[in-house]
Amino acid sequence: MPHKTAISTEMTRCIEQCLACYTTCQQTALQHCLELGGDHVEPGHFRLMLDCAEVCRASAALMINGSPYHTEQCRLCAQICRACAASCAELDDMEDCVQACERCAESCEAMAAQGPQAGKARHRGAAARTQ
Amino acid sequence: MPHKTAISTEMTRCIEQCLACYTTCQQTALQHCLELGGDHVEPGHFRLMLDCAEVCRASAALMINGSPYHTEQCRLCAQICRACAASCAELDDMEDCVQACERCAESCEAMAAQGPQAGKARHRGAAARTQ
Amino acid sequence: MPHKTAISTEMTRCIEQCLACYTTCQQTALQHCLELGGDHVEPGHFRLMLDCAEVCRASAALMINGSPYHTEQCRLCAQICRACAASCAELDDMEDCVQACERCAESCEAMAAQGPQAGKARHRGAAARTQ
Amino acid sequence: MPHKTAISTEMTRCIEQCLACYTTCQQTALQHCLELGGDHVEPGHFRLMLDCAEVCRASAALMINGSPYHTEQCRLCAQICRACAASCAELDDMEDCVQACERCAESCEAMAAQGPQAGKARHRGAAARTQ
Repeated sequence: MPHKTAISTEMTRCIEQCLACYTTCQQTALQHCLELGGDHVEPGHFRLMLDCAEVCRASAALMINGSPYHTEQCRLCAQICRACAASCAELDDMEDCVQACERCAESCEAMAAQGPQAGKARHRGAAARTQ
Repeated sequence: MPHKTAISTEMTRCIEQCLACYTTCQQTALQHCLELGGDHVEPGHFRLMLDCAEVCRASAALMINGSPYHTEQCRLCAQICRACAASCAELDDMEDCVQACERCAESCEAMAAQGPQAGKARHRGAAARTQ
Repeated sequence: MPHKTAISTEMTRCIEQCLACYTTCQQTALQHCLELGGDHVEPGHFRLMLDCAEVCRASAALMINGSPYHTEQCRLCAQICRACAASCAELDDMEDCVQACERCAESCEAMAAQGPQAGKARHRGAAARTQ
Repeated sequence: MPHKTAISTEMTRCIEQCLACYTTCQQTALQHCLELGGDHVEPGHFRLMLDCAEVCRASAALMINGSPYHTEQCRLCAQICRACAASCAELDDMEDCVQACERCAESCEAMAAQGPQAGKARHRGAAARTQ
């Protein structure tokens, strides 16, 4: 199966991180945050967790399909994961979610850096650092 | 329900177009292209149809969630829909798919134009026109 | 396109109802219930709305794929939609969701009745009516 | 986090198997079967692989949500995974897919056996064995 073995180790790892982040964000939101209530169901925070779960599923899906557009999807995924990690870090008992989001973001940023717009991505990263 | 009525008519329409494009691309690929074979199952074309279906689902999902990241997701969706429409237009009997992709792309481009990076999007559009 | 035209009007309608119910349940949960809080974010109710959204997406997906297993998926979908409609009916301001769930349930029950286990489904229906 | 730790090891394992089976079936269909052509894109076989991927995503999703309906979804998932494993076993070079489907089916059957309709499931199993 020459085609299948061509799937890079890095992409296989990124698919796993996306599915793990989806699992952790969705499960934590529905089985932990909902039970705790209070800040944990603040609409902005809660929606961000489900947005993160959704975009992780989409990134995994495009990589699994072998889509050339996966780099752009991974770029957006990393952006949402970073925001979700920051939102979770402000709450108690969300360490698992913070970690899953950060690992997924790193992996997606590495995929995005291989994309056709990698130069622009680096530029955006530079701009973000100087803000 | 003050919050719910705040969902714009334009976004409601875009959600519908994304779900219609998902339905048409996935259904046409699996129930029409697979049966016809030949050029209709050429890997690049066929995968693009399923990528398009997947990204349409993701765009609809982020809009349905009320995510502030929907503009970026719609921008990518429009890009893939345009590519899918072009790929379908080269084959026989794919008019439904071409139309669904083009309608979805237009609607997503309008959503993307409202986004935080609308200026850059216009710039990219301008760059594309001068190629 | 002989294959495509073979998709029945009833199935086309059921796909639309499933996608409409997914849209309404997910959107209402994330943009209405979360904002209202209180009973609207009671874990059992809120999770049921997202379960309903998820299973509606799955039922639509199997019908769109042309899967022979769609009747079983529709049977489960109808069951969850009925439960979600009942849960929503106990709360204020959830009429849209109740209606979307009931329409989807009816449509899915009609699909399920065409399935290989239609006899059993009718039996279950009969049992339910005599409760 | 008392609620989160209540997720059983068995369910965690089943979620992983469902996501692994989704990944393998979708990736193999789109990146291996499409490239090989011939029997590998025979519509019945190819659609079954994508149906299997779809229902695995749905089963994982309901378990991740903590839905009480996951047993019914897992029962259907196991049924489709068994059919997909059998279809893949008739073709060359599909060992990975056969294994992923069989592992997922076993895990889903164990979840289904815990469900409210476990007695019926055992009955169906018994009926199948005597065919």
